[in-house]
Amino acid sequence: MNEFERIKTFFAPLAGPEGLGLLDDAAVLETPAGSDIVTTKDILVEGVHVPMGAVPEVFARRALRTNLSDLAAMAAYPLGYLLGLALPPETPDAWLEGFARALGEDQKLFDVSLWGGDSVRTTGPIIVSVTAIGSVLEYSALKRSGAQRGDGLYVSGSIGRAAAGLQMALGSLDNGSPNWLEAYERPVPRLRLGQVLRGVATACADVSDGLLADAGHIAKASGLTAHIDLARVPMDADLPLDAMSAVTAGDDYELVFTVPPSKEETVFTLSESLGITLTNIGEMRLPTKAASGESVIVKDLAGMPLKVGRKGWLHQG
Amino acid sequence: MNEFERIKTFFAPLAGPEGLGLLDDAAVLETPAGSDIVTTKDILVEGVHVPMGAVPEVFARRALRTNLSDLAAMAAYPLGYLLGLALPPETPDAWLEGFARALGEDQKLFDVSLWGGDSVRTTGPIIVSVTAIGSVLEYSALKRSGAQRGDGLYVSGSIGRAAAGLQMALGSLDNGSPNWLEAYERPVPRLRLGQVLRGVATACADVSDGLLADAGHIAKASGLTAHIDLARVPMDADLPLDAMSAVTAGDDYELVFTVPPSKEETVFTLSESLGITLTNIGEMRLPTKAASGESVIVKDLAGMPLKVGRKGWLHQG
Repeated sequence: MNEFERIKTFFAPLAGPEGLGLLDDAAVLETPAGSDIVTTKDILVEGVHVPMGAVPEVFARRALRTNLSDLAAMAAYPLGYLLGLALPPETPDAWLEGFARALGEDQKLFDVSLWGGDSVRTTGPIIVSVTAIGSVLEYSALKRSGAQRGDGLYVSGSIGRAAAGLQMALGSLDNGSPNWLEAYERPVPRLRLGQVLRGVATACADVSDGLLADAGHIAKASGLTAHIDLARVPMDADLPLDAMSAVTAGDDYELVFTVPPSKEETVFTLSESLGITLTNIGEMRLPTKAASGESVIVKDLAGMPLKVGRKGWLHQG
Repeated sequence: MNEFERIKTFFAPLAGPEGLGLLDDAAVLETPAGSDIVTTKDILVEGVHVPMGAVPEVFARRALRTNLSDLAAMAAYPLGYLLGLALPPETPDAWLEGFARALGEDQKLFDVSLWGGDSVRTTGPIIVSVTAIGSVLEYSALKRSGAQRGDGLYVSGSIGRAAAGLQMALGSLDNGSPNWLEAYERPVPRLRLGQVLRGVATACADVSDGLLADAGHIAKASGLTAHIDLARVPMDADLPLDAMSAVTAGDDYELVFTVPPSKEETVFTLSESLGITLTNIGEMRLPTKAASGESVIVKDLAGMPLKVGRKGWLHQG
């Protein structure tokens, strides 16, 4: 098939009305009244973000879901997405068929549609670039920069599963839990949680780079230091990773967020009503001289403080 | 520099308010009242869409401008863009500096700002994926599907320059006009023209795949056949390409559009007021049996009709 036949066969059936039947180069969105538009873009490279030779379903699901996770962190409702696809010329149509089928399944799960994009050939690895578009009540997108001194720091779900799942996908871990592989291959964007955190959380990020790194992004954007108690970070009891590896590995796509003391009770109510574990793992404080400008200080399992240095995380002093 | 230092040094200075200082994973746009949002996404691959080893300025300008051209074809005003960048790990900071400087210059020229994006490493060629976001008066985006039987077919500017410029960039054409190299390396998106064509043109596309191909996209989307008179296609007299090569080469980023007979006079007025050559190159007709479903029929320089076949364009019958 040529590019136009591929678009017609595999992608046109995924198009929403904004995509104008994929006949145009651009998509048109009627702006929802009283809303702001949220846009985000992530790139997946085969061999970097997805194992070499992974099945097309893994590319499709991770590409779409990691972008939806960025919308979740801003409390946005997903509307649609643009798809950029760079494929080696020898890519068989069966690859595209599996890729499009997985996208179609995920579109139903997350109530989004394809609006357009671009499909090109490359001499390098497969690259999938998704741009997701969402909407949020005007003036109320959650940002990383809103955390206040004294806020509690929370994380959803359980950390480290996707890192264990990646080891399973790469063949370096046998007999792992199917839940871990699923956490890596089908991360569930916390859309509903993000939406209800509007007006509750002061700042929010999704855990893509690693819990410490993403908590650090919130701290840095807010001019604060995040103090995290490693013993309180929720992890599966049988996780084949030490705690520091789990909180630095990334790919969890949980939400990490800050909540003022006056609203901590609300977090417990939300946790119960959504059926999602929400755990207090630390608090936001003013940067001190002792912390020497670090955006994250971790108390290790023995209660000793760790700071990040050039060679990784080290005990202080 | 690591990724965060690169973002802070090169890209944060390009960020508009929607980009939230590039501290978040997503951008927030206050929706303009009475407007629809237009989004488009193109991918450039080194060695496919840009010559291997091209200077970073060529990547930057072509990536941004080809996307703005897609907005122009819909009569949209550009607002901002997201930048996806996949670079080999050995890419020097000087490359990024040149890339960001060219983007900064183009941002001023076209009144857009950077809203966010993603920067990743790749084992393959450089890939630049831009998503451009624009706005258009609600319900009035120009589409490919609006052409009517009897409409005149028009094209802006001069066709084939970028194809000659690409030959110069690849070193296969000496002594070409600097205008041709410029047409390839710095295509000028026809934003102002697109905006004034709202309410005048019935359908519009930008010439990226080639004049015949893009006129064909309009014809197909509108259920018509485009009849094009090759002798009327505007080309530089000294262009080192035969006419059929020029109209199939692409990369012109001119606009091709259809206008009802009642508004053809307006086209001449627009051409004069904008100082852009707008040329009638044919007309839109109902598909006939003789045309056997072709979306484009070309009358060659000798007045003989050509149809596209599996091996390219052939004389009929």
